[in-house]
This record gives sequence, C-alpha cells and structure tokens, in this order.
Amino acid sequence: MSDLEIRPAALTDIPAIVAMLADDPLGAQRESPDDLTPYGTAFRRLTKDPNQHLVVAVRAGRVVGTLQLTVVPGLSRRGSTRSVIEGVRVHAEERGSGLGTRLIEWAVDESRRHDCQLIQLTSDATRTDAHRFYERLGFTASHVGFKLTL
Amino acid sequence: MSDLEIRPAALTDIPAIVAMLADDPLGAQRESPDDLTPYGTAFRRLTKDPNQHLVVAVRAGRVVGTLQLTVVPGLSRRGSTRSVIEGVRVHAEERGSGLGTRLIEWAVDESRRHDCQLIQLTSDATRTDAHRFYERLGFTASHVGFKLTL
Repeated sequence: MSDLEIRPAALTDIPAIVAMLADDPLGAQRESPDDLTPYGTAFRRLTKDPNQHLVVAVRAGRVVGTLQLTVVPGLSRRGSTRSVIEGVRVHAEERGSGLGTRLIEWAVDESRRHDCQLIQLTSDATRTDAHRFYERLGFTASHVGFKLTL
Repeated sequence: MSDLEIRPAALTDIPAIVAMLADDPLGAQRESPDDLTPYGTAFRRLTKDPNQHLVVAVRAGRVVGTLQLTVVPGLSRRGSTRSVIEGVRVHAEERGSGLGTRLIEWAVDESRRHDCQLIQLTSDATRTDAHRFYERLGFTASHVGFKLTL
C-alpha cells in the first residue's frame, strides 16, 4: 500500500469525513450525509478552538480515516492535562490494515507533544471489537461512560 | 442551610479545591495537597481556554463543591457540540445535601447555554454510588471508558 499521511482536516474533507461517520451501525442512524450544512458550521466552530485537533488519514489522495483529539487542562491528578479522543473512523476498505492503530499512535504522540499525562475515550458498550482494539493498544477499561442527550 | 452560589473558580480557591480532590478514596493516592505548585500552573493553563469552565459551589463563604465543564465542538451527530464533565467533588460535610444534583443541574444549564446537544462524563467503575446518582439524573451508562496513562 502507498504511504499514509495524517494531517489536519480541511473544509473540503467534510464530505469524506461525514461519509465515514455515517458508514457505521450507530452512525447510520444519527448522521445526515445528504445535508452537510450543520457539519460546515461545526467545522468552523471547531477550527477556532486551538485545543481541538481534527485530523484525516490520507492514502493515495483519498481520505481513509479520521479522529478528533481534544486537549483538556485540569486540576485533578496534580494538575494533569488530559486528552480526549472522539470520532475515530476507518474507511470500510481499510479495515484490518493497521490504520486504526496508526491513528491512535498519532493521538498518543500528539498528546505527549501537548504535555498530556493521560489520554481517554469512551466507546459504545456494543462495540466489543473496538474494546479489544483499545485494550491491545494498552488502554484500560476502568470507567463507565454516561451520556445525557439535551 | 444558607444560600448556595456556583461561580467560576479563582486562583485563591485552589487550596479548597485540591483538598476536596484529595479527600476521596481514589484522589487520596494521586493528589498532592502539600504542594500546590502544579495546580497553580494548571489553573493558569485552564483559564486561558474559553471552552473550560471550572466552577466552585460556595455556601456561607466556604467552598463546598467543584466541577469542570469542557465544551467540545465536533462533526459527529450532525455537527453536535458536546460537553464533558470532569472532577465533580462535594465536600464531606455537604454529602447528601443535594449539592451534587445542584452542580450537575448547573452543568446541564451551562451546556444548553453553549448550544451543546449532548453532555457526557466517565466515572470510575468502582464508584457505584456515583453511577446510581447519574442514572437518577437521567444519564445513561451506555459507554465503556478507556484510559491510558502517558
């Protein structure tokens, strides 16, 4: 396979990112790839925040993966800064290629660069394959993740 | 009891916040209330980020609770902005007073004010009382929370 590049997402990457968000058992119910307007608005809000790092993985000029990393300074754990991973997606044709691992490794390196002492994420309880994936990468399933829709 | 005020944390609140972070079965092992230097550094980093909202609950001039809310714009769920709650603490003498509920209600109101469509948090798997508390407030334990110490 040709070389992979992980770089900040651009406005023109939105259709490819949304297509990946929607090509997923859970995402299929909650995304609207036919109306990109809310995604464009969200992208502009996101890029104004220096603690948000939305990236895409590109192979042979094609967007094949995405991930969002948020840097969160805080007081707990002796003033630790932590990072939060959201929205990890790998294109269907790239699954099993090691791209997910490359994306998480990028997130770990970037978190270290921002002096984070902890990296965290939540994964829907039904995504048992994803849970094994994160445990293989050294993550510990130590927490319960709660959500409230507003 | 006298009136409760929830307001942004100030530098002078750090000793009281750290005392609450440390007065906890898990926090006791990972905080250093005798050396506040790292907390001061973290506080300055935190207050520079407009998406961080570290608050204290004050009753009769005394800090009795704290919570950190982070606003996270993102593309998934049709460009939803979500908020993340971290570091919820209630002073030992205030437990059972409804203060925890007041803090979470503040976080919900503040999240709505920032146009968040989702509010989320993780809680250590051992904190079963906290899990019941969040479920009573309408949160769903739908996710597994993973952490990796860097």
